[in-house]
Amino acid sequence: MFELLKSDTSTKARLGKLNTAHGVVDTPVFMPVGTQASVKTLDPRELHEMGTQIILGNSYHLNIRPGLDILRAAGGLHRFMNWEKPILTDSGGYQVFSLAKIRKIKPHGVEFNSHVDGAPLFLGPKEAMEIQRVLGSDIAMVFDECPPYEAPAREQRHAVERTIRWARECREQPRAEGQQVFGIVQGGSNAALREECARALVAMDFDGYAIGGVSVGEPEPEMFKAIEMTEPFLPANKARYAMGLGTPAQLLELIARGVDLFDCVLPTRVARNGTAITRRGAFGLKGSAYKADFRPIEAGCDCFACTHFTRAYLRHLLNVNEILALRMLSIHNVHLFLKLMADVRAAIAAGMFADFYREFIANYVPSKKVLAARKAADNER
Amino acid sequence: MFELLKSDTSTKARLGKLNTAHGVVDTPVFMPVGTQASVKTLDPRELHEMGTQIILGNSYHLNIRPGLDILRAAGGLHRFMNWEKPILTDSGGYQVFSLAKIRKIKPHGVEFNSHVDGAPLFLGPKEAMEIQRVLGSDIAMVFDECPPYEAPAREQRHAVERTIRWARECREQPRAEGQQVFGIVQGGSNAALREECARALVAMDFDGYAIGGVSVGEPEPEMFKAIEMTEPFLPANKARYAMGLGTPAQLLELIARGVDLFDCVLPTRVARNGTAITRRGAFGLKGSAYKADFRPIEAGCDCFACTHFTRAYLRHLLNVNEILALRMLSIHNVHLFLKLMADVRAAIAAGMFADFYREFIANYVPSKKVLAARKAADNER
Repeated sequence: MFELLKSDTSTKARLGKLNTAHGVVDTPVFMPVGTQASVKTLDPRELHEMGTQIILGNSYHLNIRPGLDILRAAGGLHRFMNWEKPILTDSGGYQVFSLAKIRKIKPHGVEFNSHVDGAPLFLGPKEAMEIQRVLGSDIAMVFDECPPYEAPAREQRHAVERTIRWARECREQPRAEGQQVFGIVQGGSNAALREECARALVAMDFDGYAIGGVSVGEPEPEMFKAIEMTEPFLPANKARYAMGLGTPAQLLELIARGVDLFDCVLPTRVARNGTAITRRGAFGLKGSAYKADFRPIEAGCDCFACTHFTRAYLRHLLNVNEILALRMLSIHNVHLFLKLMADVRAAIAAGMFADFYREFIANYVPSKKVLAARKAADNER
Repeated sequence: MFELLKSDTSTKARLGKLNTAHGVVDTPVFMPVGTQASVKTLDPRELHEMGTQIILGNSYHLNIRPGLDILRAAGGLHRFMNWEKPILTDSGGYQVFSLAKIRKIKPHGVEFNSHVDGAPLFLGPKEAMEIQRVLGSDIAMVFDECPPYEAPAREQRHAVERTIRWARECREQPRAEGQQVFGIVQGGSNAALREECARALVAMDFDGYAIGGVSVGEPEPEMFKAIEMTEPFLPANKARYAMGLGTPAQLLELIARGVDLFDCVLPTRVARNGTAITRRGAFGLKGSAYKADFRPIEAGCDCFACTHFTRAYLRHLLNVNEILALRMLSIHNVHLFLKLMADVRAAIAAGMFADFYREFIANYVPSKKVLAARKAADNER
């Protein structure tokens, strides 16, 4: 289902094709996040125009609202939201452990209370796969346990044990027609746990492998390490997916470390706070510096926002709380991520990835948070 | 500038063409409201696709944010918001008297405090016309005084006197190239005042005439009366504009009473509360009745929302606070108003307006508020 078309010679970057029930996805790829059956503020036409190949949906959220009965009656998630291209669904594991109030972890799943109305719910491998079967996603994720970065070693070990056991249960559940299932490697920043988890999952022969337990509060250097600890144990002929990541520069770093698939709420979330992401870093558009700046958000960008509106206009809209601004920034930011991946694919195909990567990282100014974490890591050495 | 193409034989309905600096507007026409340089949630492409011919902007709001310096630097409102078709701007009179904290009414305008930050401001005929000159709207409105429905007779008389005096001042101010100026008739529900105001303004020979002081809290029958009291004194060869109105049924009633232009926040405002407007009345889409309703908002509607999404999906989006729902309802509602006006024009052209009007009113179920006001008016007779 995954075809490795080319491997970069000086980095671990890969060019590939992921064949799914709803079409082919060229990798490396960025997947816009549509948690609640909507990529926030955007409609399917806009997603198509930006070059979106595949989007994300979320089992935990969609199971609560609108609920499985409605999704079943609609004929699945693609039809419900009018999106004909591939969809990958998260299993809900991450949300159960991060959003819900957990009552009890049991052998076959988790008893918890809904974060919306407190209703008692149960989610485990069987339930997560049943939800994803009804959703009819092209790629379903196993139900895993994703502990926070600060979790002690004992908790990380238990999470890995449960993740492996639950992955096996997920593997045995019925699937929607043509649905692929990806395993998720946990293990935090512990190399031995990462290796153990990866080996156990690879032995189960999943259709692809995600690296989970990243973007859970760890500093950037730790995140890169977690990827480096895991990647060598993943088979070359299956897609690799780094969950919940990251900034444009981080995506380049992870592609260079052998990752193919990415998803992140970053471009849409920061858009709704008035932040534009460019190839040279992010900036807040609300500032008075832009009040009479009649340039587009990013010079040379051919997204709908940049070809129609100026910074001055969008800044005005942000400052008077006009919803159009949130959508236009979402379009620009998501378009940037998608276009960057297209450029990366072209660079790998042309054997120029190492140059592209070096130049991009040199030009990209990371956020203060990322810079502070890097400095802290340097000081520790 | 206005061409009367045809008058209906059994009602006062008129078919016309309004020629402006940015193109021709076919009347009767509905003008979507873009108070702060954005028709809320919608982009210019969506407005074009719906058949929007002309939109509204607001001098009071745009003067406060982004302010005249920025609008001047942008090259006017059309360029600032990337809207190439006609724009009509309100003078700000209505907002000064309804939103701002008035400090003092002076001979040449009003001292007030901004509703945004309390800053002391002054707006009068000269200032309002200067703002509209910078905005470069195709149609500028005179600066008037618009008292609430409950205002006592004495206040209504003073408002009419000021409105006439200020209209004369507006008439003498410099204009943007090709800019037309419309007078505004006040007078509340007093027939003598309405006639006096209309005659005085018509003597000044404006490019068109608005009927103001409607949609200011009065019951529907009073609103119809105010229009009926005014219309006979307006020249047939100029466009007539009923400000801030109304529901689809009210638009039909007013067209039958000789009105050509309409603007109203209703379709976009109620959309953001989850209300869909159809040819048979409005309904709230959040209700559980629609949770598994896989029909479009309105059968036969060819708007983007109805051709892409179901009620069940849009209801879900509303219930999980997804912004896409607000936009899709705005598209449907505005499209309905625009399509209704196109159908009205076709009916007048075909000499079938009376039938169209009768049938539409018979099928349209008004809101409870409108029905209650009608009943109260019937009881008074």
